[in-house]
Amino acid sequence: MKNNSYIPPVYIQIRDILIEKINSGELKSGSQLPSERDISDTYNISRMTARNALTQLVDLGYAYRVKGKGTFVRLPNFERDFVKLSGFSQMLRSKGIKPSNKIVKSGIIEADKKIASLLETTIGTKVYEIVRVRYGDNIPLALEYSYLPVSLYDDLLQYDFENNSLYKVIEDVYKHKLKYSKQWIKITTLYKSEARMLAVTEHTPAFLLESISYDMNDRVVEATRSLNIGDRTTFYTELWPNVTV
Amino acid sequence: MKNNSYIPPVYIQIRDILIEKINSGELKSGSQLPSERDISDTYNISRMTARNALTQLVDLGYAYRVKGKGTFVRLPNFERDFVKLSGFSQMLRSKGIKPSNKIVKSGIIEADKKIASLLETTIGTKVYEIVRVRYGDNIPLALEYSYLPVSLYDDLLQYDFENNSLYKVIEDVYKHKLKYSKQWIKITTLYKSEARMLAVTEHTPAFLLESISYDMNDRVVEATRSLNIGDRTTFYTELWPNVTV
Repeated sequence: MKNNSYIPPVYIQIRDILIEKINSGELKSGSQLPSERDISDTYNISRMTARNALTQLVDLGYAYRVKGKGTFVRLPNFERDFVKLSGFSQMLRSKGIKPSNKIVKSGIIEADKKIASLLETTIGTKVYEIVRVRYGDNIPLALEYSYLPVSLYDDLLQYDFENNSLYKVIEDVYKHKLKYSKQWIKITTLYKSEARMLAVTEHTPAFLLESISYDMNDRVVEATRSLNIGDRTTFYTELWPNVTV
Repeated sequence: MKNNSYIPPVYIQIRDILIEKINSGELKSGSQLPSERDISDTYNISRMTARNALTQLVDLGYAYRVKGKGTFVRLPNFERDFVKLSGFSQMLRSKGIKPSNKIVKSGIIEADKKIASLLETTIGTKVYEIVRVRYGDNIPLALEYSYLPVSLYDDLLQYDFENNSLYKVIEDVYKHKLKYSKQWIKITTLYKSEARMLAVTEHTPAFLLESISYDMNDRVVEATRSLNIGDRTTFYTELWPNVTV
């Protein structure tokens, strides 16, 4: 190991070992985490350091404490509202969950067959690609690929989409008012690279959500491919029969 | 082998071997099936018998023929409409797909915790349970568990739910007009017994669709747990923003 490489504090190292066990499924949702004493014995660290590691897990939303019993794994399952159109962050906030984002990649690419078909355009058309990991209470929930035609957005990438809603910028800055969105939900499993970005194991089942958003002139203004970790997501909707008045 | 055991005709045996290979994923959607000659050589049967086996696959919807090229696997993916409330059979028919059902089980049971919660009733309440395999063009799509409170339906099981829509009987015979339905989509994998009923392999990823249907008095009249084979189902919906007039 290089002398100048950063070594995180011990309680962070222990926290990350435990998060790894949770994400890999070794420690399941609802199961009890090792006690402070167990952790301090296993890793040969102080009780205080063990306590700090557990507190970190609670603060990050991976665990909760039960008085007199110990600390338990919580892998929350977020209910995605499929009743009306709203952004990911807005939806989480409405449920009291803190949204955050990490930009993995952003730039201008040429539409391949799949992207061209989503954006209802021709192969080779210039499009913005923004790839983000979406978190709820700091837990990775989804890997989201957003595509927008360059022709509709002058200098889009000047905006910071870690801290700004893409939908808000589309509507408020570029004045493309959203009319509606078509959405398809499929099942897939995560490739290695996708799984790594979401800190879960390869082949984890996931929802593949594809959406196409239209403005008031029925023009496609944005398309999304979003990989939602299967056991952390539930889609909820309400259906009504065709009412003939 | 017992002398009096039924042995299906050879072309049916070959057909079932090929279906098994399709369902297990050994023969993938879009891939070419062995030719008549290959099949006749492999199994030491006549060309005519091989042709009959392939024709069976086409008739059952597992394959299609391309003139001068051969026979190809088709595992269709059915788009489930999540825009308005409609029955499974009605939805398939609207897409030109022939629905059919097989009753696996039906009877009266006492609600356990899960069923009681879906039906908004107490544990131990008497409920009808109807378990059906749902097919589209004779291909298994879903295993569906329907639950209905006995108190609302006098002698429900006299009706034949292989050939009748459950929703139609609820509305037309028992006059419980459906107002709306809450629906949750989750991901699961199939247990061995479920997989066997759907003729796929164990652990196949599936959508778990849970729904609760209400009548005009906001009374729960039916609840469903439906396991939909993942790669044969896409849920489609349209979302609109909250329109403030």
